[in-house]
Amino acid sequence: MSVNKCDQPIGVFDSGVGGLTVLRALKDLLPHENFLYLGDTARVPYGTKSAESVIKYALQAGGALVKEGIKMLVVACNTASAVSIDSLMTAYSPLPVVGVVKPGAEAACLASKNGKIAVIATESTVKGGAYQRTICRMHSGAKIIAKACPLFVGLAEEGWTEGEIVEAIVARYLKPLFAEFGEEGPDTLVLGCTHFPVLHGAIAKVAGDKITLVDSAETTANTVKRILTELSLPNNSDAAGRLSFLATDSAERFSAVGSAFLGGAINLADVRSIDL
Amino acid sequence: MSVNKCDQPIGVFDSGVGGLTVLRALKDLLPHENFLYLGDTARVPYGTKSAESVIKYALQAGGALVKEGIKMLVVACNTASAVSIDSLMTAYSPLPVVGVVKPGAEAACLASKNGKIAVIATESTVKGGAYQRTICRMHSGAKIIAKACPLFVGLAEEGWTEGEIVEAIVARYLKPLFAEFGEEGPDTLVLGCTHFPVLHGAIAKVAGDKITLVDSAETTANTVKRILTELSLPNNSDAAGRLSFLATDSAERFSAVGSAFLGGAINLADVRSIDL
Repeated sequence: MSVNKCDQPIGVFDSGVGGLTVLRALKDLLPHENFLYLGDTARVPYGTKSAESVIKYALQAGGALVKEGIKMLVVACNTASAVSIDSLMTAYSPLPVVGVVKPGAEAACLASKNGKIAVIATESTVKGGAYQRTICRMHSGAKIIAKACPLFVGLAEEGWTEGEIVEAIVARYLKPLFAEFGEEGPDTLVLGCTHFPVLHGAIAKVAGDKITLVDSAETTANTVKRILTELSLPNNSDAAGRLSFLATDSAERFSAVGSAFLGGAINLADVRSIDL
Repeated sequence: MSVNKCDQPIGVFDSGVGGLTVLRALKDLLPHENFLYLGDTARVPYGTKSAESVIKYALQAGGALVKEGIKMLVVACNTASAVSIDSLMTAYSPLPVVGVVKPGAEAACLASKNGKIAVIATESTVKGGAYQRTICRMHSGAKIIAKACPLFVGLAEEGWTEGEIVEAIVARYLKPLFAEFGEEGPDTLVLGCTHFPVLHGAIAKVAGDKITLVDSAETTANTVKRILTELSLPNNSDAAGRLSFLATDSAERFSAVGSAFLGGAINLADVRSIDL
């Protein structure tokens, strides 16, 4: 059997199950591709850990996927993208490595008319400043203010996605953030964490209809498609692509918790537990 | 210089900084003892991970403390105590190993008059059933219902400890739990996670004055003191004991975030970053 590079899976790496929202956008846009998703569920979350630890974990996860024979690496975790994308590119060159920060920043610049862009993310993503720097490079006149909303992660994982309590928490984070922009508020809000789209309804309600919400799942999928074509690596099979999963915590928990984020059942037989 | 076993530190292990509330109770009761605290901050939290991962992490952390030469091991993390105490006792016998679950269960049995005891904890602690089993062994007629309150951890770490939002979240978890006991509700509520005492005020307000709140920090400290005396291991020095710290994530973050839980400043010079 000849080894056809086009058949190789696209590796998708996340700190846990949140990145399955990115995998969902990828498989919708690229239904014939094979994907191998690695969730570092034993060490999740990354968003409150130091940059040093996140880089170490990202390199271990990237290494495990490279060993499996992937044709591209997608870093679906915002924190890992923000903090470790350069380290990953250097370590696995010439493998194409795509993070979610740059596509998210591009989408924000396209969406914003008044150049006032609010970013919400985890503590580490905000501290690292990758969204702020990337948006500034594309749109030098932009005013960007980023804020950590750590409780959104807990709400999304608990399945509390709407109702009074959720809106009150969203408002407590967002109102002061919007006020920092002055009288004319931001017209664009970047959801800079893969968990946050789960709270889209409540966030949109608090933000109002003058603010466009941007999440990077779709734009990341578009970037991946473009690169595949540029490198002549698309899988031209007629068959539906295969999804496989690696998890560092138990396979049972991954398949149980992950389905809501993927938007479809995850068969336990498709999940392998690994040590990093 | 002769090696005096009494001078050896007491090792205290937690998944992160929450266990510093237990360390605080220990140093208040045993001011002449030396303590070496290990927070596995690179892999926190344990409460949403599988028992298998928690046991692996607990053995690595215990091993690191044993290598440093401790005279006793205190497992300050409820999840690690609930899931891995037997593995730790077996691995490090004859070193005395004390968890927080048994002292917490004892305190609950002492406090309860009507034998109806509610337990709130992390997902893994509740699933493992250690509180339920331990209370049942001590008080066979007790009715125990345990419930996971994962958002309490996020609230405590975010410093949102009082006010309307916090009370609404507390009520959303506790009211249905209390209702499960039937007309005569529980008279005792065990705070089965080291983060929860930070929310004591809001929890007490929702629980009302007929319910006694029990946390295991003080009772664990009493247990440690009793065992030290039984084994003739108390440090009889007149000098104040020394606190040292190990963290698996960055030392800077540990000293910055930990102080609120310890109730006093943590000098960066006293924190060493280690790999497990």
